[in-house]
Amino acid sequence: MKVILSTEELPRKWLNLAPYLPEPLEPPLDPQTKEPVSPEKLLAIFPESIVEQEVTQEEWLEIPEDVLKVYSLYRPTPLIRAENLEKYLETPAKIFYKYEGVSPPGSHKPNTAIPQAYYNKISGIKRLTTETGAGQWGSSLAFATQFFGLECEVYMVRASFKQKPYRRILMELWGASVSPSPSDKTESGKKFLAIDPEHPGSLGIAISEAIERAVTSKDTKYALGSVLNHVLHHQTVIGLEAELQMKKLGLYPDYVVGCVGGGSNFAGLAFPFLKHKITGEKTHTEFLAVEPESCPTLTKGEYRYDYGDTVGLTPLIKMYTLGADFVPPPIHAGGLRYHGDAPLLCAFYHHGFIKAKAYSQGEVFSAGVLFAKTEGIVPAPESTHAIKAVIDLALECKKNKEEKIILFNLSGHGYFDLSAYDAYLKGEIK
Amino acid sequence: MKVILSTEELPRKWLNLAPYLPEPLEPPLDPQTKEPVSPEKLLAIFPESIVEQEVTQEEWLEIPEDVLKVYSLYRPTPLIRAENLEKYLETPAKIFYKYEGVSPPGSHKPNTAIPQAYYNKISGIKRLTTETGAGQWGSSLAFATQFFGLECEVYMVRASFKQKPYRRILMELWGASVSPSPSDKTESGKKFLAIDPEHPGSLGIAISEAIERAVTSKDTKYALGSVLNHVLHHQTVIGLEAELQMKKLGLYPDYVVGCVGGGSNFAGLAFPFLKHKITGEKTHTEFLAVEPESCPTLTKGEYRYDYGDTVGLTPLIKMYTLGADFVPPPIHAGGLRYHGDAPLLCAFYHHGFIKAKAYSQGEVFSAGVLFAKTEGIVPAPESTHAIKAVIDLALECKKNKEEKIILFNLSGHGYFDLSAYDAYLKGEIK
Repeated sequence: MKVILSTEELPRKWLNLAPYLPEPLEPPLDPQTKEPVSPEKLLAIFPESIVEQEVTQEEWLEIPEDVLKVYSLYRPTPLIRAENLEKYLETPAKIFYKYEGVSPPGSHKPNTAIPQAYYNKISGIKRLTTETGAGQWGSSLAFATQFFGLECEVYMVRASFKQKPYRRILMELWGASVSPSPSDKTESGKKFLAIDPEHPGSLGIAISEAIERAVTSKDTKYALGSVLNHVLHHQTVIGLEAELQMKKLGLYPDYVVGCVGGGSNFAGLAFPFLKHKITGEKTHTEFLAVEPESCPTLTKGEYRYDYGDTVGLTPLIKMYTLGADFVPPPIHAGGLRYHGDAPLLCAFYHHGFIKAKAYSQGEVFSAGVLFAKTEGIVPAPESTHAIKAVIDLALECKKNKEEKIILFNLSGHGYFDLSAYDAYLKGEIK
Repeated sequence: MKVILSTEELPRKWLNLAPYLPEPLEPPLDPQTKEPVSPEKLLAIFPESIVEQEVTQEEWLEIPEDVLKVYSLYRPTPLIRAENLEKYLETPAKIFYKYEGVSPPGSHKPNTAIPQAYYNKISGIKRLTTETGAGQWGSSLAFATQFFGLECEVYMVRASFKQKPYRRILMELWGASVSPSPSDKTESGKKFLAIDPEHPGSLGIAISEAIERAVTSKDTKYALGSVLNHVLHHQTVIGLEAELQMKKLGLYPDYVVGCVGGGSNFAGLAFPFLKHKITGEKTHTEFLAVEPESCPTLTKGEYRYDYGDTVGLTPLIKMYTLGADFVPPPIHAGGLRYHGDAPLLCAFYHHGFIKAKAYSQGEVFSAGVLFAKTEGIVPAPESTHAIKAVIDLALECKKNKEEKIILFNLSGHGYFDLSAYDAYLKGEIK
């Protein structure tokens, strides 16, 4: 059973949950001076309207008409009841998922790529740079920029560039120029190439290259796919739609679940519901952020100031972190391999509004295969983390004979990740 | 702009257009006796209810509740207006597409795989066999059978098995067993393996293997993804939805366009509209079947009896054909590489109700890239044929200043075919 909204029912505003924090977010610090970072420094990287959204205390941010138009190519996304999965589990729980894999790039990432492209366009910017690992974010930004006539320059970790040609081709098809990183286009890249002309690269190096290009090139800015406040605001379109869809069924979730890498898909779904918990309107809902055991930022990290990148170029931000030098093992859920988490999400977690849980790679792939077999859709390796947690909750409901409503974010599909499933089916992932 | 139907608006009946033929279809002939094939022979391959649908003159066939339930995992599919493409072309024409790529296997094929699995299930069948080239049909049957607890055995042309692992993995993930063909599981396969243990295989050999297994194994039948009448009936769910969606806009198409390999996606969209042309209700609509220049079945084939497969195991059917021994060049639109076409489609073409046009591979990929850049969705190489024809029609409308309504079937997405786009972007496809 699906709940489908019409284009007219697309939310017109994003939600900023920052005003609902018990105490304000601590400011990002300049990596040199360790003082709160100056707006000028941010404006070298982002256009003014993005910087404004990053710091605003306004609760509702209007979604521009031109953004709504591009959103409407794939939004509103469906809310689907996982009836076959429920039956398989013999659970009295009702399981719903918001399916963000219907976007052409196949994940929730365009929800922020589109407004970022738009705000840069109206600020007179001609080119956006970014980094990408496996290519989910890079392909979303390539998709978004083409609608606004912006150039898109992607630095893709060389190891992925070689091993995962599909998302690279997708970016090129949507008009982006994609360079294996480290590249000879930047000083940062050249340094690493001098050590090894076939350097496999890392997300940290790719970020440095993209930022360097943005800072040193004319009419060029940088775009980031998670972690920052404005990204989380943009993603609330997911939860706002889901809230309306649940309302049409006369339901409200007891559990809201999502996987967490930088935090944007989880926050996107959870924040509109979390608001009602904070205001006391709906206090019973529990929020569960799910992460890999091998990168347990929330469950095992420290809450402190740390760099956003590996090399220490970005401002210091207050977040749960495993340390900026932490290198997560090469699990297939590439989107969850981040040492930190979004400051806004971390603050709510710190204040006890959100719980977290970690699972092993074998457990989550097993859940992913079960989902593909019952519901038909192959989930992204990232999203399988949410599915595993949902299955555990549903089995708990079965034990306790409780008819709870579980809502989770199926943040993307896994059709570009089939080699990972192949490895799992061959018994290579435990 | 999208027109979305609710689950409740899913059609409850398929349309059988055979009763509207000016003269009845000529019967399939037994390959040995050259007499009309006996029902017993068909019943060795297909269950009774499928054979009934193959020959019935009933106009409306009820869609079983259990089929509707699985349909509702991805149906109704959206009808989308290609506004960005229109703007790019500066055409006064309104271009609409029915997007069948939203199904989990990514094409229209599950529309018939699901009822075929269902009818076999209720006939007490335990296992379905089939052949597949690139894997679109095989993955659709694997997807469908798992919902009805049937085993699925797929013979995949060895060359594709090796070169295109993604769809093979998808089939396995959905529980199918996939053998590279020729295989050592059948006598037909063994013959070819004896010649060459690494024989690259062909669709003809794979069909022979799948049919042999169905005929010689207990509780096992065979399923075919195009060409036959019942397949075309099942696919009319596409056009019936599209008709309702156009009606909600107060519109009716002047042109209905689709690519043709065996003919099922084109017929699926076109037949409900074609009925109104035949009854005289709506006579102005033109129907355009689009095929590759390298496999020009309708535009250059002969209308005569021919075998459905390469080796001559199937009944002889009356159709447009390039000859059962015609081997189309290895173009990327694997789904259009068939020497014949569905007899029902051929009959309407023969009577002048449908027009046909052929395009080169370079032309259609150029259209596919333009579509991806304007509308965001990457079309399957098969579907790009329809897109190229639509662009030509829209430019014709521009020249003549005509505000025509063009409707086409975007039968699948191209996210598993990105290596073909890569070849095109590198200039390797002209």
